[in-house]
Amino acid sequence: MMKVIKTITALQEEIKAYKQANKTIGLVTTMGALHEGHASLIKAASEENDVAVVSVFVNPTQFGPTEDLDSYPRTLDADCRLAEGMGADVVFAPTPQEMYPSADMTWVEVTGNITKVLCGATRPIHFRGVATVVAKFFNLVQPDKAYFGQKDAQQVQVLQRMVRDLFFPLELRVMPIIREADGLAKSSRNTYLSAAERQSALILSQSLRAVQDSFAQGERTTAKLLEQVTNQIKTEPMAVIDYVSLYQLPDLTECPVQLSGRSLLAVAVKFGNTRLIDNVILEDK
Amino acid sequence: MMKVIKTITALQEEIKAYKQANKTIGLVTTMGALHEGHASLIKAASEENDVAVVSVFVNPTQFGPTEDLDSYPRTLDADCRLAEGMGADVVFAPTPQEMYPSADMTWVEVTGNITKVLCGATRPIHFRGVATVVAKFFNLVQPDKAYFGQKDAQQVQVLQRMVRDLFFPLELRVMPIIREADGLAKSSRNTYLSAAERQSALILSQSLRAVQDSFAQGERTTAKLLEQVTNQIKTEPMAVIDYVSLYQLPDLTECPVQLSGRSLLAVAVKFGNTRLIDNVILEDK
Repeated sequence: MMKVIKTITALQEEIKAYKQANKTIGLVTTMGALHEGHASLIKAASEENDVAVVSVFVNPTQFGPTEDLDSYPRTLDADCRLAEGMGADVVFAPTPQEMYPSADMTWVEVTGNITKVLCGATRPIHFRGVATVVAKFFNLVQPDKAYFGQKDAQQVQVLQRMVRDLFFPLELRVMPIIREADGLAKSSRNTYLSAAERQSALILSQSLRAVQDSFAQGERTTAKLLEQVTNQIKTEPMAVIDYVSLYQLPDLTECPVQLSGRSLLAVAVKFGNTRLIDNVILEDK
Repeated sequence: MMKVIKTITALQEEIKAYKQANKTIGLVTTMGALHEGHASLIKAASEENDVAVVSVFVNPTQFGPTEDLDSYPRTLDADCRLAEGMGADVVFAPTPQEMYPSADMTWVEVTGNITKVLCGATRPIHFRGVATVVAKFFNLVQPDKAYFGQKDAQQVQVLQRMVRDLFFPLELRVMPIIREADGLAKSSRNTYLSAAERQSALILSQSLRAVQDSFAQGERTTAKLLEQVTNQIKTEPMAVIDYVSLYQLPDLTECPVQLSGRSLLAVAVKFGNTRLIDNVILEDK
């Protein structure tokens, strides 16, 4: 029987008991509105660890003042059913007050290009909020493994840097993007889309599949790969491009004129009021 | 036989073995140049835990550009002898490269008055460096208890806030100031003092003892208590006051006109080129 825990004190007692019983812990941090992307993370956490803990917390510090904090979908009952179905042992759903006990904040901030480019350019406080809240969950849950989706590619890189720099004693597991049958990457924000926007948004996965093909056929010129994706997205009248970018992994540094090693091609595009992201890793096999 | 460990990989293996054997761990983080103040922390860590780990690391990120990073005393052999004598099981003495693996930093920063007043006013990056390196040591050593001296009163408050805000799963133990027979608070920087400066510096502990007496006799007016300490320190011609301040605990907020609750009276005073700090907590019994 899965437990739903709302206070930090109760969570800490639960974790202490797991630790004393030498149980391994898998953690999935979420903002709720769980979909099949989250489900794949929870399933992996459950299969690879003795217990799986899922946090459900719409983290206010990663939303900018004009962003969708208030309207972000909150569906705790459905989230609990999905989590339990995927094998979760605990859903931890704290209040903002519990997670941020002080009037002033203690921040965890990853600096450098890695948080300045892509979404960092238009969401300047976003990754500081993410790093801070994830550090809190790491200390609260003390997981052996923590699961994140490649869908949020920049978040994954930022958190890998945080884990490496601060020496968190855990393994960060990055799981593949889960897509709808027609290719749209699963996202809690997909529910905002009208039917027409939903149809237009397919251009993202289509353009990324096409650029993967070009890369596989030998195209290595950074500018040409970017141009191909940009042009293809622009064929969709409803698409308003925020960015189409290529950066080198792991630290999201500038790409050379000719790609080499491992690179991230990431896009952020608005359809109506809804901003969607998607990405692909280009890498020589 | 105490182990001296210099790499993070070797430390992590050692800690893993302790954890698997269910041993409790006490941590003392130091910048070396160990004296009887540190000795009291190491002794407590050894007595209250199965194993005691002492880090010796002159942390570059907590020194400002004009401060004494290069000249800070480095005495690893003597430090190891002292630590072993106090019951330490491990001395961890990493290089800056080991502790800061990325070109860009991941920072841990406690914000608010707590890091802006007192030493934070003249050392704006100091507590960010302290919080960051201590967070790293917490994640590396995973201590049950971590020991800090009340000598560094503001550091203690900052780290208590960090532990509380980020939910580090450990107990922070604050140990009393250790003094020379004549009252001077033990400090690695005392070795910088000339004989004359050393004599002048006694005014710090004398003035703090005197203000404790005034408080015990009922004086509660913030301005009067501050004035008393300031005037007494000024009787010493070599003393150049950086600050004489009173703040409310725990978050170092402004004191009301009449003291109540728990307050920190802290002083920072230069004698020649050497800046010394000392403090006393004023509290109704």
